[in-house]
Amino acid sequence: MNDAVSAPVLQVVGQRPIRPDGADKVTGRANFGADLRLPGMLTGRVLRSPHAHARILSIDASAARALPGVKAVVTAADFPEPGNQAVDAGEGAATLRALSENCMARGKALYVGHAVAAVAATSPEIAEAALALIAVRYEPLPHVIDVEAAMAPDAPLLHDDLFTKGVTPRPTAPSNIAEKIMLGRGDAAAAMAGAEVVVSGRYVTAPVHQGYLEPHACVASAGADGQCQVWVSTQGHFAVRAMCAGLLGIELRDIRVTPAEIGGGFGGKTTVYLEPVALALSRQCGRPVRMVMTRAEVFEASGPTSGCVIEARLGANADGRVIAAELVLKYQAGAFPGSPVGAGCMAALACYDIEHVAITGFDVVSNRAKVAAYRAPGAPMAALAVESCLDELSLRLGIDPIELRIRNAVRPGAKAVYGATFREIAFIETLEAIRNHPHYRAPLGPDQARGVACGFWFNIGGESSAAVHVDEAGGVTVVSGNPDIGGSRASMAMMAAETLGVPIARVRAIVADTSAIGFSATTGGSRVTFATGMAVVQAAGKVVDDLRRRAGLIWECPLDQVQWQGGQAVCTDPSKTVKPLTLAEIAGRSARTGGPIAAHASLTAQGAGPGFAVHLCDIALDRETGRPTVVRYTAAQDVGRAIHPSYVEGQIQGGVAQGVGWALNEAYLYDDAGRLLNPGFLDYRMPVASDLPMIDTVLVESAPNKRHPYGAKGVGEAPIVPPLPAVACALSRLVGHRLTELPLSPPVLLQALDQPGAAG
Amino acid sequence: MNDAVSAPVLQVVGQRPIRPDGADKVTGRANFGADLRLPGMLTGRVLRSPHAHARILSIDASAARALPGVKAVVTAADFPEPGNQAVDAGEGAATLRALSENCMARGKALYVGHAVAAVAATSPEIAEAALALIAVRYEPLPHVIDVEAAMAPDAPLLHDDLFTKGVTPRPTAPSNIAEKIMLGRGDAAAAMAGAEVVVSGRYVTAPVHQGYLEPHACVASAGADGQCQVWVSTQGHFAVRAMCAGLLGIELRDIRVTPAEIGGGFGGKTTVYLEPVALALSRQCGRPVRMVMTRAEVFEASGPTSGCVIEARLGANADGRVIAAELVLKYQAGAFPGSPVGAGCMAALACYDIEHVAITGFDVVSNRAKVAAYRAPGAPMAALAVESCLDELSLRLGIDPIELRIRNAVRPGAKAVYGATFREIAFIETLEAIRNHPHYRAPLGPDQARGVACGFWFNIGGESSAAVHVDEAGGVTVVSGNPDIGGSRASMAMMAAETLGVPIARVRAIVADTSAIGFSATTGGSRVTFATGMAVVQAAGKVVDDLRRRAGLIWECPLDQVQWQGGQAVCTDPSKTVKPLTLAEIAGRSARTGGPIAAHASLTAQGAGPGFAVHLCDIALDRETGRPTVVRYTAAQDVGRAIHPSYVEGQIQGGVAQGVGWALNEAYLYDDAGRLLNPGFLDYRMPVASDLPMIDTVLVESAPNKRHPYGAKGVGEAPIVPPLPAVACALSRLVGHRLTELPLSPPVLLQALDQPGAAG
Repeated sequence: MNDAVSAPVLQVVGQRPIRPDGADKVTGRANFGADLRLPGMLTGRVLRSPHAHARILSIDASAARALPGVKAVVTAADFPEPGNQAVDAGEGAATLRALSENCMARGKALYVGHAVAAVAATSPEIAEAALALIAVRYEPLPHVIDVEAAMAPDAPLLHDDLFTKGVTPRPTAPSNIAEKIMLGRGDAAAAMAGAEVVVSGRYVTAPVHQGYLEPHACVASAGADGQCQVWVSTQGHFAVRAMCAGLLGIELRDIRVTPAEIGGGFGGKTTVYLEPVALALSRQCGRPVRMVMTRAEVFEASGPTSGCVIEARLGANADGRVIAAELVLKYQAGAFPGSPVGAGCMAALACYDIEHVAITGFDVVSNRAKVAAYRAPGAPMAALAVESCLDELSLRLGIDPIELRIRNAVRPGAKAVYGATFREIAFIETLEAIRNHPHYRAPLGPDQARGVACGFWFNIGGESSAAVHVDEAGGVTVVSGNPDIGGSRASMAMMAAETLGVPIARVRAIVADTSAIGFSATTGGSRVTFATGMAVVQAAGKVVDDLRRRAGLIWECPLDQVQWQGGQAVCTDPSKTVKPLTLAEIAGRSARTGGPIAAHASLTAQGAGPGFAVHLCDIALDRETGRPTVVRYTAAQDVGRAIHPSYVEGQIQGGVAQGVGWALNEAYLYDDAGRLLNPGFLDYRMPVASDLPMIDTVLVESAPNKRHPYGAKGVGEAPIVPPLPAVACALSRLVGHRLTELPLSPPVLLQALDQPGAAG
Repeated sequence: MNDAVSAPVLQVVGQRPIRPDGADKVTGRANFGADLRLPGMLTGRVLRSPHAHARILSIDASAARALPGVKAVVTAADFPEPGNQAVDAGEGAATLRALSENCMARGKALYVGHAVAAVAATSPEIAEAALALIAVRYEPLPHVIDVEAAMAPDAPLLHDDLFTKGVTPRPTAPSNIAEKIMLGRGDAAAAMAGAEVVVSGRYVTAPVHQGYLEPHACVASAGADGQCQVWVSTQGHFAVRAMCAGLLGIELRDIRVTPAEIGGGFGGKTTVYLEPVALALSRQCGRPVRMVMTRAEVFEASGPTSGCVIEARLGANADGRVIAAELVLKYQAGAFPGSPVGAGCMAALACYDIEHVAITGFDVVSNRAKVAAYRAPGAPMAALAVESCLDELSLRLGIDPIELRIRNAVRPGAKAVYGATFREIAFIETLEAIRNHPHYRAPLGPDQARGVACGFWFNIGGESSAAVHVDEAGGVTVVSGNPDIGGSRASMAMMAAETLGVPIARVRAIVADTSAIGFSATTGGSRVTFATGMAVVQAAGKVVDDLRRRAGLIWECPLDQVQWQGGQAVCTDPSKTVKPLTLAEIAGRSARTGGPIAAHASLTAQGAGPGFAVHLCDIALDRETGRPTVVRYTAAQDVGRAIHPSYVEGQIQGGVAQGVGWALNEAYLYDDAGRLLNPGFLDYRMPVASDLPMIDTVLVESAPNKRHPYGAKGVGEAPIVPPLPAVACALSRLVGHRLTELPLSPPVLLQALDQPGAAG
């Protein structure tokens, strides 16, 4: 197997071949979650709570069941009583019970849009009519939406049995605070008291949705013998299998989940909403059931990420060295515990080497949709607070913002507050890449300002499987179990091609279903290029070993005299006058040298290598209308080594676009009854192409990941972290005072311009 | 890995678990070739020749193309000019050219029903209307249907460039005789001249169709980037991939073929008809195209097996010892070379140890649909001739028919005429099983007679791939690349369960597409339980090794002190007081012991072990109407070891049913213009349940196959070989003279009863 880090020249890795899924996606041939049709297939629809908080007194579905064309009706009574065991459901749910009750309300409805029943019928129209015939008697209860209001001792309680974890002694009264997290080192309070400069602020962010174009969609089919199949747009079909099995009391082996092409996930497709419901409906009637959310359902009932309140305080010496940090993070979890506050606490200060740290986090439930993972979950909001404080410090001390960060930056060997010791990281080089970029020195126009901010993400490894098959003509297929949300088919094919020494045009990559490939953890955590890539390289390496063995058989030459060079077997025995054998030649003779050529590898990968991002954002502000315009944006990132640079750039550009939307416009707006006011793309304002300039990217490859054969680190999540503070800092400089609450939409900015201290 | 043959007690192999595909098939949930629906999918239809033999002067499709809703029209001009390279197309086609021209006529139409053009349109009605708008100008040519007429020097020639292979010097004139085969040993003519008894006959059989319930059906989709997908009811999706690639000039790696559930194949679904056409249509219009044959198209244009004329002569001593055999086999190939005459020649005398043998075979083209493989291709007709001669000999010499065969039977170590040396065979035991069966001694009723006959089939090994995946809860999935036509999902799961030591209920089996599993040769030749089973057992053995390794890791115990017993790891180190670890327990900890548990194996299997069958058939004949009734049937077979005895019995019963239909009723009937008169199940009379008694089976397991870990031999084909002679011999005894031409339908039998020499 090639050792990439020491490999002399890479032939494929680092190139930019055409993306394999491109033609199908632009011509409409790609099949997404809603595109499958099966004989006898029914349409499933969900009845959702109109109340933000209500006891469900009764559900009478008899009229719906009697409607001709209705084949199945389910409520929570059709799901097994869930237990409290932990379940891996992305960031989404901590217990089987919570996951079950989020899919189908049991006893209480906890947010507007919470599923209370579902029907399957022979047409969408009949299904909708059936929903209207289901009589649900509710007892409305007081509700709470705001995170700090939910923390108040007298707040309406969502769960009678929720007692705050992480506090001693164990509380005797239930609370909306699901967990309190404490993280730190040194003596932050004392250090803060001795700091020469202290900056602080209270930062607030709104919940924002992942905004994937494709709504949740699936088809489920249960056989009379209990064998189930699910087709679904998901980031993790193995996780869908596990969750459906857990929620319905089915054995894993009795469910086969096939991933459709996925129209965006960004973390939000790591849990289940419709899948167990469709399966329950199918089990009741024995016919396949297709369910597709409307856009309103996506907004109301599938996970945004948390809105937060973060109190931050940094203490520094006059030279800009930060010596103390105190953070309090309050994250909305939605209706069930499980916000990303833990990751937020761990990531908040990971860029910086600070001696005295005290971080407190709160995971808080309220009457909103349960949050789901969203790119670098929990980190962007924490970065808003920390980077804004650093920007304030930079202004106060008159130190260049990059220089200030370089003075505090973690270096290889540094120990993060959350416990990790960094190895080959290139944060300093990434900061310097931005400092040396022409953008950093470019003059600003009138009413323009520049924000700079950093971001961190852990990146993970985990369990992956891959197989590599060689066809009779020497073509290669790479099989993995990870839905391709960011170019993994391209990068898997490239790593296989590199290892085999063949052109990328010879390699195809597919994503296989849960039965056809070994277990593979969900596509998320920026893990796939790293972990699944390692499995692919291992499998391809086994194929190379096998090809050498077969060449040796053909030549009657010992294995140690057969080398694999440039996609061919070469005999190093000078007494043999044999021509090299290409992959295709060996493949053509495989039947007589042991059969088809194929190999499999499964592993648990460790050491994905954290990601560091440094962003630079120029914004113009129209002082008449409050309209901000991002006029220039440059993003640098420590990427280890970019397998397919265009995809890495795309990940960075996508992260920036989403971060800018989060900073400037996106928010969940509720009325007094707890109803979401803007559940659609017309009213929930995401950035479109015309809202953004071309986003320039700088890939820092000076520290390839030594644990990955080609040096890859995770790259997909770090880029969404800096835009919130980069945008907020630029706009703060424009309005002349610190802006602390997102989104910074035109009305907010107009108001800020009117405030005392505003620059004019 | 278990060594089955020496394994003390098998826990799963030999049991009769419920078939895994049963519920889906009886409830209609199983999805066959025509069940897939894709967005934008079109219907494809084929325009077929109304002439048995005609030159195609021109094809004008302009009116069809102009019809609204028509999206693509193809003719042979849309296929690359095919070459003469050999292609593995089941028994069906010997060259790429023949395969191409059979899928779409080029220059000449060679049989009624030969495809000349195809359209894809937005509805079946529009597609049909478009066919009517395609103007084909034909120049009708004289045609020939009968095999001996086609061999005549002045017969109408199908192919100007067909010169008989196997004769020297190479012929200078083209012929309808594609090949002449000579096989033999000793001096048959001299031995025959010295024989004490000589029996001979001229035997004639009609072409019969495989009669699968599901017609040929597929969906093909070609992307703008050339990536193609095919969903199809087939016995060999890897072969479909190879044939489509060859016919359309596409790389193997650019075609992904997914096998649907298959509604019968019996050899007839080992080649392509619609698939390359659907793909060509899809490439032209960029939309998925579904094509499904009507039943008439299945009969007219998909392969029956050959009709034949066989001249047979056996010479024996008075003690019944056959010392000489002379056979001439003339097999119809249909419109292109490639009848199963070669296999017929090889199988004809394989049951018997005869010193002097001369066999001549002729592969003959005529204006009929190209034949395709049908269960033990070529052997049943040859057995009709040879076994009828033996029956005649038995009558002449007054030797019991079983005793006569035992005196001549091959034994382990015997060398077959076709070259093989038999190893662990149990032909003698199978003959004795029938002789000892109560049926053999049961009295016959009035107007009843008993036929006895033997049959042989080679069985093959070949290339197979398999994977075994263990889920997080210890469930097991077995993946193979062989469509399940005879219970392979059950037997693969059983062999994996046996090897792993877990109950069969824990194991699921799937058939994966061409991209998701390593190359696997077509399901046919009775190879899958043997060859793919070996791959499954190898992969499961690797999993066992891995499970032991992981248990050793958990226990910190060297590998050689970890044994796998009864589905658990057991530590044999007496100093360790550890409880055994079950598969599920090890699976639950797999993330920390190296990742997901999975293994893959690919191999070329050899030594499938030939199959020997001995059948006993009691028939009653209504002398008024000529109606024959099979009143009792017993079939014994050397099966090595039956993995799932019910399936083996089912294979035997199915083979008998098809063989009885072939003997009694089935035939292709043509009018003078070469048009098939009975292209439908109403007129082509296959036996139905009420036509047959319960067929008793005897599985002879005294000689397990030493090359297979659990002793399996191929079992699916041998059972169709003896019924033709068993039925014919019984009826011959009833009518009092030798019946030599199939089918023996009531009119034929009535006429036979009227012949001189008929018993009354």
